[in-house]
Amino acid sequence: MTNETARIEAFSDGVFAVAITLLVLDIKAPPVSSASPSLAVRLAHQWPSYLAFVTSFVTILIMWVNHHRIFTHIGRANDHLLFFNGMLLLGVTVVPFSTALIAEYLGHDGQRTAAVVYNGTFIFIAILYNVLWHSASAKGKLLRQDADHHAVQLITGSFRWGVPGYSAALMFAFLNVTASLVLNLLLAMFFALPTHLSRRRNSNAH
Amino acid sequence: MTNETARIEAFSDGVFAVAITLLVLDIKAPPVSSASPSLAVRLAHQWPSYLAFVTSFVTILIMWVNHHRIFTHIGRANDHLLFFNGMLLLGVTVVPFSTALIAEYLGHDGQRTAAVVYNGTFIFIAILYNVLWHSASAKGKLLRQDADHHAVQLITGSFRWGVPGYSAALMFAFLNVTASLVLNLLLAMFFALPTHLSRRRNSNAH
Amino acid sequence: MTNETARIEAFSDGVFAVAITLLVLDIKAPPVSSASPSLAVRLAHQWPSYLAFVTSFVTILIMWVNHHRIFTHIGRANDHLLFFNGMLLLGVTVVPFSTALIAEYLGHDGQRTAAVVYNGTFIFIAILYNVLWHSASAKGKLLRQDADHHAVQLITGSFRWGVPGYSAALMFAFLNVTASLVLNLLLAMFFALPTHLSRRRNSNAH
Amino acid sequence: MTNETARIEAFSDGVFAVAITLLVLDIKAPPVSSASPSLAVRLAHQWPSYLAFVTSFVTILIMWVNHHRIFTHIGRANDHLLFFNGMLLLGVTVVPFSTALIAEYLGHDGQRTAAVVYNGTFIFIAILYNVLWHSASAKGKLLRQDADHHAVQLITGSFRWGVPGYSAALMFAFLNVTASLVLNLLLAMFFALPTHLSRRRNSNAH
Repeated sequence: MTNETARIEAFSDGVFAVAITLLVLDIKAPPVSSASPSLAVRLAHQWPSYLAFVTSFVTILIMWVNHHRIFTHIGRANDHLLFFNGMLLLGVTVVPFSTALIAEYLGHDGQRTAAVVYNGTFIFIAILYNVLWHSASAKGKLLRQDADHHAVQLITGSFRWGVPGYSAALMFAFLNVTASLVLNLLLAMFFALPTHLSRRRNSNAH
Repeated sequence: MTNETARIEAFSDGVFAVAITLLVLDIKAPPVSSASPSLAVRLAHQWPSYLAFVTSFVTILIMWVNHHRIFTHIGRANDHLLFFNGMLLLGVTVVPFSTALIAEYLGHDGQRTAAVVYNGTFIFIAILYNVLWHSASAKGKLLRQDADHHAVQLITGSFRWGVPGYSAALMFAFLNVTASLVLNLLLAMFFALPTHLSRRRNSNAH
Repeated sequence: MTNETARIEAFSDGVFAVAITLLVLDIKAPPVSSASPSLAVRLAHQWPSYLAFVTSFVTILIMWVNHHRIFTHIGRANDHLLFFNGMLLLGVTVVPFSTALIAEYLGHDGQRTAAVVYNGTFIFIAILYNVLWHSASAKGKLLRQDADHHAVQLITGSFRWGVPGYSAALMFAFLNVTASLVLNLLLAMFFALPTHLSRRRNSNAH
Repeated sequence: MTNETARIEAFSDGVFAVAITLLVLDIKAPPVSSASPSLAVRLAHQWPSYLAFVTSFVTILIMWVNHHRIFTHIGRANDHLLFFNGMLLLGVTVVPFSTALIAEYLGHDGQRTAAVVYNGTFIFIAILYNVLWHSASAKGKLLRQDADHHAVQLITGSFRWGVPGYSAALMFAFLNVTASLVLNLLLAMFFALPTHLSRRRNSNAH
């Protein structure tokens, strides 16, 4: 983190934090009613909201972790970085909407359309992570002078899986939308993996 | 606070700040109506919203204080810390929903179910505080080299009361849901106590 | 700003920023309708929302400026500071609700009740500013060693006007609620005044 | 960024981040219905929401970039700066409302009124950028001692286009509201341009 990128990170953190917290607005308290199904039953019926909430929460969390990770290697900012970062945040901001959509339609007509929008948002974000990272790391343009080449290449390698991964989840939705959501959760966990490398680098520094 | 944990804290602060402020959206202005009960009476009828708001506000506030407190001792981050912190924030993010639920159902059928969800959220968060703190402090793994052992043990000791405390509040809800909410308020105050220790440590440093 | 108070300020800034931005949710776009009054007319009818929005925005802004100002003099934190600051933030968080209430009821039955709640929230916050500041500045307990005595006393002096000022606005609401809102705006401007002193102090430092 | 302006920037960043993320609340998931038009068709009908969302997102993003840019040159704060910055943030906070309005009315009676409000908000903000910048940069009053005169003049020059630009978009709305929204997008891109200058200045510093 340098001064030049510090405020980009602060603003991005703000957007990530607000977007991840707004997700809960998609889970509604069922209105009080004296009709027969108990509150417990009515809450249980809302399981698509919980599944969509957890999936999107974990996905945005991992995106934030990755944003943090790539900015530990970036030392300078330029117009392209600002622009691509802005488009990436636009994608993140859309997630509460696409989450509301999949939560509402899971198990109803239109659930495939909802899954296309949901995974489409993630594909858009995955493309922007690749473009942002390429624009910053190609020829080491915006990287810190002490950036670890191995860690940089590992990020490049793992980001390659974003677009095909979310495209697979999108295709999968045509077979089974619920299973596709679970695949989204697994994808988020895959993108969480390479952290240990930056940790190793930190412990090497001793 | 070190550079390595600074952005985790900044992001967590953002989530805490948004979640604690979203609580107010659960308090609705009663719609204008020319019917007989005056606005004052209709506002008074909303007391469950106010009780739930204050209880959740104070609870999230104390959680934030404790988050702040444990991160004053943590000097490094690793994958587990990031993951457990993320799950902890997931719990915090759910609080505006569980608060809306208890506010809506207090005094109606389903209030016990609502209290189970409300305290269940707090039990989930209490478990994660213990797991996060254990993962960071066991064998001093992620602690700062100058971390005060006495203060570390006091945190460990006080966190032990989280799960049984909120479980008691949950049980209590089967007798009286309102009294259980008041117990939640008292629990928050209990977890606020051990601050004076870190203060003492600071004054010792002179 | 010291390390000890930095995270309190960061969290408080987050709450202030979210609360001040949530105010806009009280201004609703009128639903599309082909009925006779034009959109311009229907928007003009919403003037109580705009007046309440601007008044609350300016008031929270000035509260933030004052929060900022008193924390430039505070060098250490203790339990009381954390607690009073938390209660102060609770009051700030309530403002979007009390604003929605006054906007909804201005010009209808219940507008006096709404004005009592609106000003009551501000009186609560004004009390807490006094208590927080007294707890920090009495005998210079938590102040920085280089705190400017004259500036400290000026803050103490100006804060004295908070409770009587908002109480006057509350009383005034029994005569005319709209005029009372305008008085709230004027009060916010009064509390904005003493900044020039801290500026002078800064220029003296050269 | 100096200590004196750091907390103004942090608070402003918070407001920008919340406002830009709240924009998504204007995009609603269509309610589940078994009636004939498919979800895809109903989503496509919501295109005004998407156009308004993207336009406002990009506009707030560029405003944030410009806010960031001018504060890299500002070294001190005074009352006027705080006040003008506060009014500027008030304008930014209104954008989610004006965006909801244009999204709701595009293609319906009242769309011209909505476009007047939408562009009126931007004109208000553009005026405040000019006033804020003039108050800070006239005679170099609040600028850092090492501020680059060329960069300062370029900012002054580009800000001159704000009021006429958004006024043109407002006029244009009387011919075609959709085209006027697209003009708003183009304006945002125009105001994004002069970044390369501050970059050049940074690279000169080597």
